[in-house]
Amino acid sequence: MKIALDAYGGDFGLAPNIEGALDAAGRLGCHVALVGDEAALKSELKRRGQEGDPSFSVVNAPGGVIGMEQEPAIACREKPDSSIMVCADMVARGDADAMVSMGNSGATAVAALFKLGRLPGVSRPAIALFLPTKTGQVMLLDAGAITDAKPHHLLQYAHMASIYLQKARGVESPSVGILSVGEEENKGNLLVKETFPLLKASGLNFRGCVEGRDIPAGTVDIIVCDGFVGNICLKLAEGMAKTIFQIIKEAAARNPVYLLGGLLLKGALKDIKAKTDPDATGGAPLLGVDGVAIIGHGKSSARGVANALSAAMKFHQSGVNDAIKQAMARIESEKPAEAGASK
Amino acid sequence: MKIALDAYGGDFGLAPNIEGALDAAGRLGCHVALVGDEAALKSELKRRGQEGDPSFSVVNAPGGVIGMEQEPAIACREKPDSSIMVCADMVARGDADAMVSMGNSGATAVAALFKLGRLPGVSRPAIALFLPTKTGQVMLLDAGAITDAKPHHLLQYAHMASIYLQKARGVESPSVGILSVGEEENKGNLLVKETFPLLKASGLNFRGCVEGRDIPAGTVDIIVCDGFVGNICLKLAEGMAKTIFQIIKEAAARNPVYLLGGLLLKGALKDIKAKTDPDATGGAPLLGVDGVAIIGHGKSSARGVANALSAAMKFHQSGVNDAIKQAMARIESEKPAEAGASK
Repeated sequence: MKIALDAYGGDFGLAPNIEGALDAAGRLGCHVALVGDEAALKSELKRRGQEGDPSFSVVNAPGGVIGMEQEPAIACREKPDSSIMVCADMVARGDADAMVSMGNSGATAVAALFKLGRLPGVSRPAIALFLPTKTGQVMLLDAGAITDAKPHHLLQYAHMASIYLQKARGVESPSVGILSVGEEENKGNLLVKETFPLLKASGLNFRGCVEGRDIPAGTVDIIVCDGFVGNICLKLAEGMAKTIFQIIKEAAARNPVYLLGGLLLKGALKDIKAKTDPDATGGAPLLGVDGVAIIGHGKSSARGVANALSAAMKFHQSGVNDAIKQAMARIESEKPAEAGASK
Repeated sequence: MKIALDAYGGDFGLAPNIEGALDAAGRLGCHVALVGDEAALKSELKRRGQEGDPSFSVVNAPGGVIGMEQEPAIACREKPDSSIMVCADMVARGDADAMVSMGNSGATAVAALFKLGRLPGVSRPAIALFLPTKTGQVMLLDAGAITDAKPHHLLQYAHMASIYLQKARGVESPSVGILSVGEEENKGNLLVKETFPLLKASGLNFRGCVEGRDIPAGTVDIIVCDGFVGNICLKLAEGMAKTIFQIIKEAAARNPVYLLGGLLLKGALKDIKAKTDPDATGGAPLLGVDGVAIIGHGKSSARGVANALSAAMKFHQSGVNDAIKQAMARIESEKPAEAGASK
């Protein structure tokens, strides 16, 4: 299979992308199309002795790179030949089976949605983010800041995430929770109260309401929420971990006893860091678009890029999107007619 | 001044409450009315040799204690003589100047709102929680899970919090942010987009939108949000800190090198723990009710109770509620007529 990789996307530019691609292509047997500045990419492949390697191709993106801080919709419109847009276009035209970018998350989602469209029956795609927990990972969606979701959207998120974990990750009967402020159904906001009965009747392994503390505790496999709440949680969780490590680091710099303690604890702290490391999750699938798109973390190293490429392969090969289409058709047929209005 | 203290409220029952009260009464010169089982409290005061101490009185609450997991509104209705309800009643009748409870937060808010009512002009009271940051504390409100707030409510939260920090904590021009998913005004949900211009025109030290990461980073003094989001953030932040410490503790139990490292780092970890310690914040003021109520953390020790009593004193003595009344009257007079409908 062929994956279009946004070769300069992310905070660290080309290096982690090309190194991750070299690793993944060799190990997983996929073909990676490096999308970006053609001349620069070709000379880089040459420099690394991979010039004639059939695992790689180079695709020019004359529009350059969309910056990490650019407004996604505007950037995609103004730079139709940017690397992210070219990647999405390749998947749309069938020139690639999947796209992967460590660049501007919002722009990746916008480009994929614009070029690939939604799967039939899907009202809204969602960024399904893996967050580290005490025991493993939890899939939180929508983490993509598509705000003001409706109950119908959250129901679709739960179905899509369950299918993804089953098919691409082999989780047998993924448990689903809805993010709220208490375990009781009546404690949530309007969105929770209206979504709860839909999830209860969904046939999914629905465990009811979960709270903020359930995200790090890892009590369920999937947590659905509005993109506004999801994005705030994701940034709060990242910020908390970062702040705690900064405090330990600064204490160590100040005091040799702490420094020694920190060195001895390094292995344990590394375990935590490894868990909270963006490299470990393999990127966030964009669920609900008619194609395969993986949105990686801007701070990914080569390992993170390789993991994202691997996730794209599993996403493509495990038939996730066909299963989502079938599920959407089934939900649609079971849905009372007027609910269609909230699409 | 006289403070009604819910003597058995919180996860640890009487001990931290009575010890905190003994400490605060002696140090701060306030009178504490211990509200609970009269006979038990009297014998406890006797046992501690404080029987005739004029700093204490005992007030019977025949309805017992509202449990931490009870549904607030139902519990307050069914137990009108519970300690929390008696405390609120004392403030309402002028028998006490303030109430403090480490018990069921929701029930404390419900009891205070029910017995004291709102300050004139306030649409909705808010629980204003102090969360630890890298550099100090940030006031997050509403943290009380009063969900589905309107723009007008968030504007009032910002005014009330600014007044509280100025009057009771001496912060000169408290900076205010609104919690969102990006720094740009247009990135938020409907609530953010509609609240932003109100805050911009408020005359407050408004710094615009802040993100989840700004909570631990401490970039502003006050963050306003809907109670649904605030409560999720608070529980996520608590859960993150707890999980990280659990992982370090478990690593230390497994491996003697980590144990030694942990021991050497203990001081630094203690610094972090002290910051995230519920004892350090002094409890959350309930802003917008016509009286003084401080909601403490269920896991407070004697120090936490003493700090909450001290916060109640400052809240009462600094004229916060008078200033809120004046601010509300001013906002009301400046508001276009039709906005009153959203109350």
